Amino acid sequence: MSITKRLVFTCPLILLCCSCLQTQATKPKNVILMIGDGMGFAQIKAYRYYADDPSTPLIEPLPFDRYLVGAVATDSIFMNCAEGGAAPCVRDPYGITDSASAATTYATGQDTVIGRLSLSPGGEIQESIIEMARRHGKSAGLVATSQITHATPAAFAVHVKDRAQYSDIADQLFDNQWDNKPLAAVLLGGGTADLQRKDRDLVAEFSQAGYTYVSNREELLQADASHLLGLFAPWGLPRAWDRDANVPSLADMTSAALKVLEKNPQGFFLMVEGSQIDWAAHADDVAGVVSETEDFSRAIEVVLEFAAKQGNTLVVITADHETGGLSLGRDDIYHWDPRPLRGMKKTPAAMTEEYLAGTEPLSQVVARSIPFTLTAEEQTRLDNYPREVPSDPAYGVDGIGAYMGINEMMSKRTVTGWSTLGHTGVDVPLYAVGPGSENFRGLLQNEELGQQLQAALLP
Amino acid sequence: MSITKRLVFTCPLILLCCSCLQTQATKPKNVILMIGDGMGFAQIKAYRYYADDPSTPLIEPLPFDRYLVGAVATDSIFMNCAEGGAAPCVRDPYGITDSASAATTYATGQDTVIGRLSLSPGGEIQESIIEMARRHGKSAGLVATSQITHATPAAFAVHVKDRAQYSDIADQLFDNQWDNKPLAAVLLGGGTADLQRKDRDLVAEFSQAGYTYVSNREELLQADASHLLGLFAPWGLPRAWDRDANVPSLADMTSAALKVLEKNPQGFFLMVEGSQIDWAAHADDVAGVVSETEDFSRAIEVVLEFAAKQGNTLVVITADHETGGLSLGRDDIYHWDPRPLRGMKKTPAAMTEEYLAGTEPLSQVVARSIPFTLTAEEQTRLDNYPREVPSDPAYGVDGIGAYMGINEMMSKRTVTGWSTLGHTGVDVPLYAVGPGSENFRGLLQNEELGQQLQAALLP
Repeated sequence: MSITKRLVFTCPLILLCCSCLQTQATKPKNVILMIGDGMGFAQIKAYRYYADDPSTPLIEPLPFDRYLVGAVATDSIFMNCAEGGAAPCVRDPYGITDSASAATTYATGQDTVIGRLSLSPGGEIQESIIEMARRHGKSAGLVATSQITHATPAAFAVHVKDRAQYSDIADQLFDNQWDNKPLAAVLLGGGTADLQRKDRDLVAEFSQAGYTYVSNREELLQADASHLLGLFAPWGLPRAWDRDANVPSLADMTSAALKVLEKNPQGFFLMVEGSQIDWAAHADDVAGVVSETEDFSRAIEVVLEFAAKQGNTLVVITADHETGGLSLGRDDIYHWDPRPLRGMKKTPAAMTEEYLAGTEPLSQVVARSIPFTLTAEEQTRLDNYPREVPSDPAYGVDGIGAYMGINEMMSKRTVTGWSTLGHTGVDVPLYAVGPGSENFRGLLQNEELGQQLQAALLP
Repeated sequence: MSITKRLVFTCPLILLCCSCLQTQATKPKNVILMIGDGMGFAQIKAYRYYADDPSTPLIEPLPFDRYLVGAVATDSIFMNCAEGGAAPCVRDPYGITDSASAATTYATGQDTVIGRLSLSPGGEIQESIIEMARRHGKSAGLVATSQITHATPAAFAVHVKDRAQYSDIADQLFDNQWDNKPLAAVLLGGGTADLQRKDRDLVAEFSQAGYTYVSNREELLQADASHLLGLFAPWGLPRAWDRDANVPSLADMTSAALKVLEKNPQGFFLMVEGSQIDWAAHADDVAGVVSETEDFSRAIEVVLEFAAKQGNTLVVITADHETGGLSLGRDDIYHWDPRPLRGMKKTPAAMTEEYLAGTEPLSQVVARSIPFTLTAEEQTRLDNYPREVPSDPAYGVDGIGAYMGINEMMSKRTVTGWSTLGHTGVDVPLYAVGPGSENFRGLLQNEELGQQLQAALLP
């Protein structure tokens, strides 16, 4: 038999063998889902330009750029369902999602109404991937820079009708158990206000149940725990640029979570959220967007390094939706400028807090923390901004008036455009690497992404 | 030898064989590059929502959604070079590109300054992929809904300092030859104003050189040519929604081009551009964006069908840059609405032309061509818009004032946001299918995409 004929003859067998080898390799031991809340293509591009080394001719790729595999359509199908599921839901096929319904699609593989956490539009409990992981002997962890009771992390471990039920969420983080332990072996973020209440001290309950409790960076880094609860702020963590040495970064928390979770020989599911990219974008705050994306990107580096070393971990990185309608370019200017952002000493939100605590004009406070000189026009505009406008406590920034003034100035300086203070419907980027990543390719609906996570994790 | 041992022993050989088979399969005979000018992720999302069948519960994917493989960074590195290359170029690493420098990256694999066509920043000729294709015995074609002398198609066949040198571009389309024939065997689009001038009649010259010349849809569909020139308008083609039966669609032109090019047994390179997505976006015209993207999408269907049947064709679909800073969502509204766009009888640009040709109030002209009733406020705003503002002849729409008035009304109705009337720097989507498509994955710089096209096409 000639070599050619031999090849023709054996090729189907060879291909079968190859595809069989491939199939065997696609079940990872661990699955890590990383969610940049509100992080669209434009947010990443802004951060890539900001992070660029200006001394080299080309723009350096981000550590995760090479793993771009497609995009996620964050469409939310169901809206305005009657309580108790008595009447059918009024369907809005072009609804823009919120973090609760979006996180529910990733956590359960099923879509739901705006504001709901891992309950169907009719109110039925949807099993979450963490519950499935525990049923199969795996551990689970939740890490976020928001309070750990916030919509995105909460969707993975609780079932409530309204994301604003913070006390119920905190209770369920402990009460929802498998094998006599809370679902998540690791919970890291903010949230003492919700977990240490007058009516119930969940920190004490977690401690009694065998969790090591840490409340600052030093304790976190030194913890050698089998179960770990870390709360570093009453609500969300201080912003990335405004943290002191007591506050861990998202990368610190992610390292600590991996240290605990990798002890389980049967593997784990971990969700890591860069929560405050969204919060900054809700205020059209480009400095906040790049600094929070930087914090998220460094956590991604920790995860990629772990996955490369461990060898059997699927890493999926995406967003839940885009926030702000961010655009790099405005007013017909063919140039975006990251330079005014480099060397800022604090975020616009922190400058606002400093301004509200004192008596100086806003422009004077701002001038101290920026790497450029304000123009006369910028000074005047800043000082004419209303001192305070009713603020949104959900985002932890008082004095929205002055805050928006700084943000508008920075957006103009950097040639940044925005279309809204809310979310938008544009598709968000999808990155995947590791065994099973071949099932995360192209354009996925958000609930498909949740279903693929389950398929990857479970036997 | 046990089966396991046998597998261990033969596996390296098997894998080698598999990878060898794969490598052999990755050189396509034909390469088709499709460019949606100005078509970012948001433009595609708007069209996907517009094209959705509202009678089904889910949003139908577009014919090319399944081939999403990543994104292209459209960064333009070089700006403001001195004439003749005497002084070094002033480098703007965060420059936003134009269609000329962007098309040059795809056509030659090299970046250049804004406005330049397939010349280096210093003015040296950069060989284009069409010139390479011809050197290797392959045919080439250019199809666009702009004039065929416009920046994107022109970059593939000419070398000029300024995209506005339309006469020089037209001359070079004929004069740049290989083997005694113009570079492109197929040229389809608009452009009689540039090709039939007082000083030179290039249509006559192409005809004498053996090209079949067609000037309406009927002639195009019936042409059985070895070389084909089709010009259907003085400048750009009439807009997709405003064409009469004499004007071919982009899909018609694409079919005709394939019919000619597939005759070459050595294969071909074809560039198809949906040119006017960009033109609509330059006026923040969401109706124009969805209608021109629809025209482009139908041409994609033609190409995908051809590629599936032919079996050895690489199809790459992308954009040259995003235009408009388009966003789906504005004013904190969590919903985007394609319905006002469905059933429009003509484009806002055509309504403007009708208005300027008559004496009716703008609102009355608009009311006849939209599928909804104008509110009193919308009527007042339309009728108070300045009748005419100095228009930009490059985009073929007179009376920009009224045009912008209709666009603003439609953007508000559909909950559409914009950040600029120019281009933006956000990454654009990348789709690829066919042999060699495995080299188009993840995030590519635009000049890398050009280099990969060459690597795919050439032996």
